[in-house]
Amino acid sequence: MSTFVAVDIGGTHIRAAAYESDNITPLTHKRTRSHAKEPGTFDRLVQVIESAWPKDRSVEAIGMASPGPLDPLTGVVLATPNIPEWINFPVTEKLSAHFGVPAYLDNDANLAALGEWKFGAGRGHHDVLYLTISTGIGGGVIINDRLLHGYHGLAAELGHVVVLAGGPTCSCGFEGHLEALAAGPAIVRYVREQLEAGVRSELSSVNNLNALEVAEAAKRGDALARSAYERAGEYLGIGVASFLHAFDPSIVIFGGGVSRSGPLLFEPFEASLRAQVFNSRYLENLVITTAALDDDAGLLGALALAQMKQSNQ
Amino acid sequence: MSTFVAVDIGGTHIRAAAYESDNITPLTHKRTRSHAKEPGTFDRLVQVIESAWPKDRSVEAIGMASPGPLDPLTGVVLATPNIPEWINFPVTEKLSAHFGVPAYLDNDANLAALGEWKFGAGRGHHDVLYLTISTGIGGGVIINDRLLHGYHGLAAELGHVVVLAGGPTCSCGFEGHLEALAAGPAIVRYVREQLEAGVRSELSSVNNLNALEVAEAAKRGDALARSAYERAGEYLGIGVASFLHAFDPSIVIFGGGVSRSGPLLFEPFEASLRAQVFNSRYLENLVITTAALDDDAGLLGALALAQMKQSNQ
Repeated sequence: MSTFVAVDIGGTHIRAAAYESDNITPLTHKRTRSHAKEPGTFDRLVQVIESAWPKDRSVEAIGMASPGPLDPLTGVVLATPNIPEWINFPVTEKLSAHFGVPAYLDNDANLAALGEWKFGAGRGHHDVLYLTISTGIGGGVIINDRLLHGYHGLAAELGHVVVLAGGPTCSCGFEGHLEALAAGPAIVRYVREQLEAGVRSELSSVNNLNALEVAEAAKRGDALARSAYERAGEYLGIGVASFLHAFDPSIVIFGGGVSRSGPLLFEPFEASLRAQVFNSRYLENLVITTAALDDDAGLLGALALAQMKQSNQ
Repeated sequence: MSTFVAVDIGGTHIRAAAYESDNITPLTHKRTRSHAKEPGTFDRLVQVIESAWPKDRSVEAIGMASPGPLDPLTGVVLATPNIPEWINFPVTEKLSAHFGVPAYLDNDANLAALGEWKFGAGRGHHDVLYLTISTGIGGGVIINDRLLHGYHGLAAELGHVVVLAGGPTCSCGFEGHLEALAAGPAIVRYVREQLEAGVRSELSSVNNLNALEVAEAAKRGDALARSAYERAGEYLGIGVASFLHAFDPSIVIFGGGVSRSGPLLFEPFEASLRAQVFNSRYLENLVITTAALDDDAGLLGALALAQMKQSNQ
């Protein structure tokens, strides 16, 4: 029996959990608010790991999921916008020095893909495309049972692929990316633009609109709200068709808050995907599904990472 | 010493060559016109292989490059537009039965990528993006020293990735694909559209325009011809930036006729690529180059395929 500690650095919380081998029910599970904009994130990270550290077992390694950009090959966080003090921050080296065991790092979308492949919706598949859709769009790709990293460790940034050259500006500052057309803020932006253009909607009275409120209005039948999700689903179908042509996976798994909006998004998405795939063979036996691990995908991906790295030693 | 026979089915010729181990100078090399629209392509294929078959050596396997779509996993040509009589045609099974040795198949762009990686411009790289630009755009991707195939064997169809949703119609019938914006016919189409719109150019007097004539006019200073290549280069930069974000290769290799147009295409391409990459780290140590094997890329890729398959037996 091997014991691993998994860590997930999220926008609001840092979580740590200890697992025994492949048992996805944790031995221990602790969380703390990340207060990531304030100094001392590394100290809070160490404290939550210590509080989750099993007292009676020998831990083999630590696996950690963090927002990127980061270098999974060296374990260095490059400059994640959520934690301003972590610039070229060698987090695995520091964790390893503190805890005396190897530590491994990868970005949250890659590890959610790995977690779903090993423990969740992607079990039994060898070629997996994972997309998380929330305030941004992140991607993770598994090819022949291996996570796609690329030369610099920056592959699978699938929210930042151009689908509409010259189109709306993305959170990253570039134009026409999938994220700028299909993530939560893109849905909200479209509603705002249409309201400003004089389209009527119950949403005209809502301040600080978010994608969830648009979804609720759509479910009540609001035409503008429905069309905002239809448009996002259509672009998502265009993007995923391109990803099928590029990666040819056997399963597409959707995670993230916006993916929980159900048929509102997925009906137009599937229609668009079928209309855009240029050879119907890509769709043969293709599974399209939502993530099975929910909020635990990052932790379980970090567990899978630590296990995999140790078994490759 | 192992001997292999490599075959390349091109638009105008079928070629076959015998190679000894890793020596890329063939022992024998034969070609015949493919007359691919006429019946009897398989018989012509067998004849040219027989004529290239080395008399005094034992051949270990046959490797074959063909236009797709095809299934590299089963060796079946699905429905290549160039050879109307080959519908779900089990070419490797038939070759193997005739010649009594294993036969392996992959598409021409994948094998050009494999050939460049093993014998050409990509030697020493582990993560390769290969694009061939001529009347279409084909792709081949190598990840961790392995050709990317995907679940159905249809991965890396990079000409058919959407970069401008709702944009011009591609040869495949779908809209906004990279091929419809940056391949030879896209360059010609743009010139025609601009001529029809009244733009002046020396090309207005040319019938049956092709991309090479546009290139020659551009080199003589024709403004419309130059702008057609600039536009193609700009879209190519947008597409390749997305491919860096998706695959993060250490080298991008360009093959095909249009890639021989030099700075006309590659100056605007590189400017566009640099302007579109959303994190400059993708460009660190990135090599951008043209193919080294020219017309032999398919044959040498077929050789590499046969060698690799036999060594994995």
